[in-house]
Amino acid sequence: MQHYTEYTLEQLQAEDARLKKEYEEVKAKGIKLDLSRGKPDSVQLDLSRGMLDCLDSGSSLRAEDGTDCVNYGALAGIPEARRFMADIMDVAPEEVFIGGNSSLNLMHDCMGIAYLFGMVGSETPWSKLPAVKFLCPSPGYDRHFAVSQHFGAELVTVPMTKDGPDMDVVERLVAGDSAIKGIWCVPKYSNPTGITYSDETVRRLASMPTAAPDFTIFWDNAYACHDFYPDEPDVLLNIMEECKKNDTANRLLIFASTSKISFSGAGISAFAAAAESMKHLQKQYSLQTIGYDKLNQLRHVRFFQGENSLKNHMRKHAALLLPKFNAVLDCLRTQLGDLGIARWETPRGGYFISLDTPEGCAKRAVALCAEAGVVITPAGATFPYGADPADSNIRIAPTFAAIDEVGTAAALLCLCVKMASVEKLLAGRLDSRAS
Amino acid sequence: MQHYTEYTLEQLQAEDARLKKEYEEVKAKGIKLDLSRGKPDSVQLDLSRGMLDCLDSGSSLRAEDGTDCVNYGALAGIPEARRFMADIMDVAPEEVFIGGNSSLNLMHDCMGIAYLFGMVGSETPWSKLPAVKFLCPSPGYDRHFAVSQHFGAELVTVPMTKDGPDMDVVERLVAGDSAIKGIWCVPKYSNPTGITYSDETVRRLASMPTAAPDFTIFWDNAYACHDFYPDEPDVLLNIMEECKKNDTANRLLIFASTSKISFSGAGISAFAAAAESMKHLQKQYSLQTIGYDKLNQLRHVRFFQGENSLKNHMRKHAALLLPKFNAVLDCLRTQLGDLGIARWETPRGGYFISLDTPEGCAKRAVALCAEAGVVITPAGATFPYGADPADSNIRIAPTFAAIDEVGTAAALLCLCVKMASVEKLLAGRLDSRAS
Repeated sequence: MQHYTEYTLEQLQAEDARLKKEYEEVKAKGIKLDLSRGKPDSVQLDLSRGMLDCLDSGSSLRAEDGTDCVNYGALAGIPEARRFMADIMDVAPEEVFIGGNSSLNLMHDCMGIAYLFGMVGSETPWSKLPAVKFLCPSPGYDRHFAVSQHFGAELVTVPMTKDGPDMDVVERLVAGDSAIKGIWCVPKYSNPTGITYSDETVRRLASMPTAAPDFTIFWDNAYACHDFYPDEPDVLLNIMEECKKNDTANRLLIFASTSKISFSGAGISAFAAAAESMKHLQKQYSLQTIGYDKLNQLRHVRFFQGENSLKNHMRKHAALLLPKFNAVLDCLRTQLGDLGIARWETPRGGYFISLDTPEGCAKRAVALCAEAGVVITPAGATFPYGADPADSNIRIAPTFAAIDEVGTAAALLCLCVKMASVEKLLAGRLDSRAS
Repeated sequence: MQHYTEYTLEQLQAEDARLKKEYEEVKAKGIKLDLSRGKPDSVQLDLSRGMLDCLDSGSSLRAEDGTDCVNYGALAGIPEARRFMADIMDVAPEEVFIGGNSSLNLMHDCMGIAYLFGMVGSETPWSKLPAVKFLCPSPGYDRHFAVSQHFGAELVTVPMTKDGPDMDVVERLVAGDSAIKGIWCVPKYSNPTGITYSDETVRRLASMPTAAPDFTIFWDNAYACHDFYPDEPDVLLNIMEECKKNDTANRLLIFASTSKISFSGAGISAFAAAAESMKHLQKQYSLQTIGYDKLNQLRHVRFFQGENSLKNHMRKHAALLLPKFNAVLDCLRTQLGDLGIARWETPRGGYFISLDTPEGCAKRAVALCAEAGVVITPAGATFPYGADPADSNIRIAPTFAAIDEVGTAAALLCLCVKMASVEKLLAGRLDSRAS
């Protein structure tokens, strides 16, 4: 098939008319779908309903070390929950601190600690500095960037590659500017590109010299066990070990949660940190709470056992998610594959597909989708300040809608991307004729 | 009976010898008891075990407005939980924000917001100010004072009276010093004195002019429904209404939790604020989390219904707690009542009894208790910086120990207070002879 860029003006005009007609037909169907946020659907959530039977009024509510889970105490969590999250995070149990139902909240807390009190190695709390900058590999996760922006940091865009953040850029920036205090990373099945950081990327993040003594990697391993191919998962190099080898363990904060394992609204979260950082953070947390919900910790640990092992459980998630991803990917391939107007990765896990349209077409395509009843994450949201300089990235979240709806929505999106691309090419062609 | 102060030197010496002998006898018994923290005991916690049967794998997990409690969303909580906590806090449901398992965490969050971003009316975030001071009615709650101290505030002691903080002092301080940004209050069955603020105190707090435009009352109504006499509870004037009358609603943050209603480690918490403050705080919280554990909110609302109404439930708590408090109070009355060395209030609810010994005797008495196997809250803990200038206040927490243990511990404490008092009087008497 011919690329759109090779079309004659007349061909483009014909295609434009054809697409518009098709669009009006789709619009007339009155679709109402939402592919905007990375939420599990109710079938996925039902996989964890059994957890509600794990504790009843007759259960022992004691942790394995005797801690009464309904009373106060156990700031860092009960031992079995720390072990459970340690397995997910690939660290030692004593390096784990269990939080509430939101790892975002833990990230926000840790950022707050850095701003008000500083991290290990800080000469001064970040709020007292004239400038703080944060590296934001983009496209990336909007809520991460929003946290940094909220605290007043300048967001610095770093390009994403198939191997993670462009490490040449990262190394140059962090070596030369002590105002750069950290970087946001979703290292496995990255939000939104779906790629997993290469071993080299992990090694370079662990070993790179940084001008700031308190440079911090916010390592949000949100999709640590969210593999579509459980027998051939992407394998992420253990960054904690790499940091220890390089004596940089204090720069590392790992985050994870069960929000996309058990219940998005009622899971457990955790951060991991090496000894010195953990001691620092626990001291701060001891002022903030007497400890998080241990009953929910117990519920999780008791549920994910035997038949319901985490591994088996995540297979069930994969079986539900893979068809939805394939529905989108098939659509992209058949509808956009040969037109030279779109690029995307094929994620092997996680919650998103990232689509790059021609420059200046993403907002238009998303607006066209909205007009026809399909909500897509706002174009630009995957970049700092919600502004994609190329206006080309679109994040697709296929998990929440039902499978047939996903196909419908993806088809519409492809149509809208084609329309926006043809409009753009036409405008360019007419411009160049005029000049 | 004669007051110790009226004893002759010889009488004091004889009493000293007698008490020491008695102390050695008690010590020999090898008691091991803890009256140091305000924790419910396991019998109290068992009152809420039925909550674990409220949700099982077959339950509807939808809130009344259709919100899926296991998915993301509902930042401020589900409607029925907001209503439930609104009843406890004596405010409107839309004035309530539901948090996680810890109201202390909400207080810490709100303080963090004030420091990093400011409150409604702030000219600048508190962290950017040269000085911030916080009023600490004392004796008060150590964890409150610790939060302010942690953030860098100077703690200003305000005397507690039977009606609440000494309002003459409070009014004078807040009117004259714009660095005073707030006050900590436990208005009902106060920690530790057990008193409830008078209507006049509440009215004056709501109406007093403050030099700081962003002066904030941290109103920790931790014992809102923790009455020992449910048919004749202490009645706290509605401060939200008073603030609204005085157009000072933005100065008010109310906190509460079910930590001492359901499970101390797995309850729900809430803050209440009037419209403008609520909008400000929710905006901050929207960066921090997508919402707290709604499943636990649902569990609470479903449990506290019909037979298990909050009112009935709190009667059961009262029935367990009152005998323990009476055991301590009886002991104080019979052992210390006539010696002129101790003062205490008789709480009609809450978790603590506050005992005032002669000046300079509290630390010694607590140390003597510890030596004989009974842990009491460290003397001084109820004052800013953990330092009671008079060294006279002792906080007694009778809830966690079993009833017979409470009697044993209280008897030992009385003995130790007598010993410390006699030692002190003897030292004074010998000093004055020497000079």
